[in-house]
Amino acid sequence: MPELESFKKQALEQLLEWLRIPSISTLPENKGDMLRAADYVEAAMKTAGMTRTEQIHRAEHPMVYGEWLGAPGKPTLLLYGHYDVQPVDPIEEWKSAPFEPEIRNENIYARGATDDKGQTWILVKAVEWLMKRDGKLPVNVRFLIEGEEEVGGEAIEKYVSEKPAQLQADAAVICDSEMFAPGLPSICTGLRGLVYGELHVEAARQDLHSGVYGGAAPNPIMAIAEILCALKDKDGHIQVPGFYDSVVEPAPAEKEAWASLPFDEAEYLEKEIGATSITGEPGFSVFDKTWARPTLEVHGIRGGFVGEGAKTVIPARAVAKISTRLVANQKPEEVIEQLKAAIAAATPKGVKAEFKFLHGAGPSLVNPDSPFIRESALAMEEIFGKKTVFIRSGGSIPIVGSFLTHLGMPSVLMGFGLPDDNLHSPNEKFHVPNFYNGIDAVVRYLERLGA
Amino acid sequence: MPELESFKKQALEQLLEWLRIPSISTLPENKGDMLRAADYVEAAMKTAGMTRTEQIHRAEHPMVYGEWLGAPGKPTLLLYGHYDVQPVDPIEEWKSAPFEPEIRNENIYARGATDDKGQTWILVKAVEWLMKRDGKLPVNVRFLIEGEEEVGGEAIEKYVSEKPAQLQADAAVICDSEMFAPGLPSICTGLRGLVYGELHVEAARQDLHSGVYGGAAPNPIMAIAEILCALKDKDGHIQVPGFYDSVVEPAPAEKEAWASLPFDEAEYLEKEIGATSITGEPGFSVFDKTWARPTLEVHGIRGGFVGEGAKTVIPARAVAKISTRLVANQKPEEVIEQLKAAIAAATPKGVKAEFKFLHGAGPSLVNPDSPFIRESALAMEEIFGKKTVFIRSGGSIPIVGSFLTHLGMPSVLMGFGLPDDNLHSPNEKFHVPNFYNGIDAVVRYLERLGA
Repeated sequence: MPELESFKKQALEQLLEWLRIPSISTLPENKGDMLRAADYVEAAMKTAGMTRTEQIHRAEHPMVYGEWLGAPGKPTLLLYGHYDVQPVDPIEEWKSAPFEPEIRNENIYARGATDDKGQTWILVKAVEWLMKRDGKLPVNVRFLIEGEEEVGGEAIEKYVSEKPAQLQADAAVICDSEMFAPGLPSICTGLRGLVYGELHVEAARQDLHSGVYGGAAPNPIMAIAEILCALKDKDGHIQVPGFYDSVVEPAPAEKEAWASLPFDEAEYLEKEIGATSITGEPGFSVFDKTWARPTLEVHGIRGGFVGEGAKTVIPARAVAKISTRLVANQKPEEVIEQLKAAIAAATPKGVKAEFKFLHGAGPSLVNPDSPFIRESALAMEEIFGKKTVFIRSGGSIPIVGSFLTHLGMPSVLMGFGLPDDNLHSPNEKFHVPNFYNGIDAVVRYLERLGA
Repeated sequence: MPELESFKKQALEQLLEWLRIPSISTLPENKGDMLRAADYVEAAMKTAGMTRTEQIHRAEHPMVYGEWLGAPGKPTLLLYGHYDVQPVDPIEEWKSAPFEPEIRNENIYARGATDDKGQTWILVKAVEWLMKRDGKLPVNVRFLIEGEEEVGGEAIEKYVSEKPAQLQADAAVICDSEMFAPGLPSICTGLRGLVYGELHVEAARQDLHSGVYGGAAPNPIMAIAEILCALKDKDGHIQVPGFYDSVVEPAPAEKEAWASLPFDEAEYLEKEIGATSITGEPGFSVFDKTWARPTLEVHGIRGGFVGEGAKTVIPARAVAKISTRLVANQKPEEVIEQLKAAIAAATPKGVKAEFKFLHGAGPSLVNPDSPFIRESALAMEEIFGKKTVFIRSGGSIPIVGSFLTHLGMPSVLMGFGLPDDNLHSPNEKFHVPNFYNGIDAVVRYLERLGA
């Protein structure tokens, strides 16, 4: 298919153009870029033959909707992706500028390359190719591409909860996860949820001289340290009362399947993590720890004097960004209350501590027996030449829970990212062959579903 | 003495001018201001009748020396002060700009108002007044005004250790401490030492996605929290092995004298600290805690994402600025080794931790029976009309130890600051009547010593 080959090459060039727009949803200064990125994907939907498109405003950044419903009697798919990306700091660690995409060693290096512009583009371009080749599609499609995935997806959550008729579909297809290993087609059946917030600690009215008051005045950084150590012990076991109560253990068959996945723990430690050892709860495998166990992490901390040199001050306040990842059947609203109670119990004398919830998402688990998932697995097997594996992901895609809860539809998570793609980190990349194979696999999936 | 009154008013105006120079020794961008502040005090020494002045360069910022040795047979005093000041952040908490001195309610508000330009100016102006009035001084004086007190005083330490002939004196007089209460003349007989450094923790090679790796990857902020909690328990008791071994308890008589000082703990908590309670080791008084017990404090911490909003990252590294205040007879070099060993023992799996020593100072205790201290106490009693109390200070003036070790001279710490003067904090201030009385007291002290 030389025609498809040249189509895919052109699709890559268009993706690079989209990646040049710094659509960072969390930063107010990028608001204009967000609109440009939304316009860009809306135009692409039109090119792909959508008979109607629309920008839907519910919060800060619009969702982009597009539909083609010309296959009566055939299934309808809701194709989901997001055009917003994570911030880029620490910027000095990028080898090439995050918004000047560069292709090196068959990888696209750019913020959003995998997460999720690159994978969203697979969906758009697979549809465009089918439309271009056949003048019609084998199934009905609705696109819903959001702009607030990286900041909690409240807009889309609100919209989906309104159960709009135009989102009615048999299944959602989401390309925002990863393959277990290069060349190994993978479908993600479980995602972790999230409760993200800030832990604010106030001690004295103002910064104090550590000589004059040291020994008698409370220290808010020390207080945060004490609270964190009370919330999680040295083994990584979370000490928040009630936290583990509703955790569902993976079925033995699922754990067995995980155990047979190609995985070298030493290589994972060295190549992916780059620390001196893997940490976390004793007695659990890396898959358990990152897919099936909830976590508590600190993402950032700030307090007192952090300039060059020395300042002998006891700061008045400090703040840490913390989150927990949740697994089925933990509920974000319950975990928020558990966290608040545990923080209150752990707050040392002399300071005030407050957990300010920022955003959350429920965990999700889907049934691999659905025909929508089975056909996807077979389509990927055709293209990649290997049996599709069912894995989970430690990350959160809040929309998966919303689609299930509000629209009653399962989500098919066809992921084409790779484990070392540096999501949310400097030097994010996307493997070009996965981009091309992703288009082929989605084309085959739609053909199979329509057959 | 109307003439002295107008002299003191003029001295105040000149002090305000000096305070306008942002002589922050720790910031490279203020290097030029440091030189201007040094020139300003050198010119004032000349005006005060010093027969020789000199700027002595040993490190980053010069020391300013001045001498008048025209009273043979009389004692020689080494008058010490410093012209460098602390940084000003958090700048937004200042009611008036730190380098635009404002007088409100009989207080000068400015960075360095008390610590130490205002108090240094007392020494310079007392000498000038005596010279102006009598054409000579009752004792011999040498000034040594340094510019690196707030960054560890390495230059002066090095210089004093060379035992230069021109520093030969019978006693040092230092105005860089505080009165116990407004109107209560105070001499400080003990100072705490310091070991200040940075705790660097490295975990992964780069920032990691907290969803993908959370549960298996080490977290450097959590590691710092664990190390801090291992170094100091919830009661403020330091858990560094050997740390308390050489601590000298205050004599019972000294503790009794402290117990009779006018002190309202509730007011101290409310007005000076402004937190919900006093903290620190159970069973110790506030004086014990801040004057006679060593401490371990965190001054600042930085790691991961601290911008607005949410970023789900596990940072690669984090750093905390920490220090211990030492009391007699702890030795900085021993404490550094104890800290390093305790940090190594407390470092959790998966991360590398390193303590980088920045600077230190030994603690000091002086003998109140020295005639130089006795005459100072009597001079202050004359001016303030109250019996002078002997207190200690929780802060560090490293030069006091150096004067004793290298030059064999006791230091007389006549302090005119007040406990709520906000040293090292926003809205630093200096009580104008204390500035005026300080000049009178130093004048009387020199007269008494020369009699």
